[in-house]
Amino acid sequence: MRKVIFGGATTLDGYFARLDDSVDWLMWSEEASRIMADYWKNIDTILIGRKTYEVSRRMYGAKNTKKKTGSRGMSTYLFSRTLAQSPEPGVTLVTGDGVAFVRNLKNEPGKDMVILGGGALGASLLEGGVVDEVGFNIHPVLIGSGVPALPSMARQVDLELVSCEPFRNGCVNVVYKVGAAR
Amino acid sequence: MRKVIFGGATTLDGYFARLDDSVDWLMWSEEASRIMADYWKNIDTILIGRKTYEVSRRMYGAKNTKKKTGSRGMSTYLFSRTLAQSPEPGVTLVTGDGVAFVRNLKNEPGKDMVILGGGALGASLLEGGVVDEVGFNIHPVLIGSGVPALPSMARQVDLELVSCEPFRNGCVNVVYKVGAAR
Repeated sequence: MRKVIFGGATTLDGYFARLDDSVDWLMWSEEASRIMADYWKNIDTILIGRKTYEVSRRMYGAKNTKKKTGSRGMSTYLFSRTLAQSPEPGVTLVTGDGVAFVRNLKNEPGKDMVILGGGALGASLLEGGVVDEVGFNIHPVLIGSGVPALPSMARQVDLELVSCEPFRNGCVNVVYKVGAAR
Repeated sequence: MRKVIFGGATTLDGYFARLDDSVDWLMWSEEASRIMADYWKNIDTILIGRKTYEVSRRMYGAKNTKKKTGSRGMSTYLFSRTLAQSPEPGVTLVTGDGVAFVRNLKNEPGKDMVILGGGALGASLLEGGVVDEVGFNIHPVLIGSGVPALPSMARQVDLELVSCEPFRNGCVNVVYKVGAAR
């Protein structure tokens, strides 16, 4: 069955971005580049929350948002409770039960799926028990406030450490298999 | 100069404890026991926030709280904006500017100092630029809500990774040197 993967680069205090959505604290590393290149080979589907989608449109422009996802030949699903129609061709809007939708997608043939940004979408799918793997590239900085990578959840989710790799730049990359949500 | 150290066991979603202060998710490990035994050898002073102090009194009883700190021959400083006097002999109440107080303590002779529990005290001393080292034993679990290890701060604090050790039980122990607060 296709895996659903959640994660990204975070600060040690658990933020994906500053309150203004900027990520100027991100550090480049050869190790992360290598890991990400391998990672994308196994992915053919992007699950993206509405807020993260809008941030990436603001950052890259509407045209490039489409190109960015489209050029990789990725299926893109946009999760929203407020949008009435898909904002661009090639992006499928999901307005109903996100957990049930992802559970169905997992049974279809295909490669793995990644939850892009969106701590809110990530947390709801983790709570719903449809996430198989979480991974964070923990950066050596405390930014004090920002967009949480892991917003509050009503359930506990047990994890199993798969790998832990410290990078030369001081980042620590951790990957976990998701166990029971209870 | 004496170092001030902040940290403790956390969940991957950044909590020191559940909302009811319980830490039933804590995992024992030989590696953590060894690290903590070495760690305490270099400590002679405990800096504890009022909330954490009260939790430990509730957990261990008033008598044992004193014994616990006293038996180790530790100087204990209790930070509070609300208490009028020290709740027990051997515990010095600090009610004024905590950052200035700790800065002075660092210039006195002695071993290193540890901030016990208390994300709130830890964050205020980090913001104030008097913390030298942070370390977390990151447990492989998401508890969804709880007492944050790193509450919001008004400043960014840069860190430098000193060590990263994955344990056999899936915990990851990370230690950072604190750089500039800006």
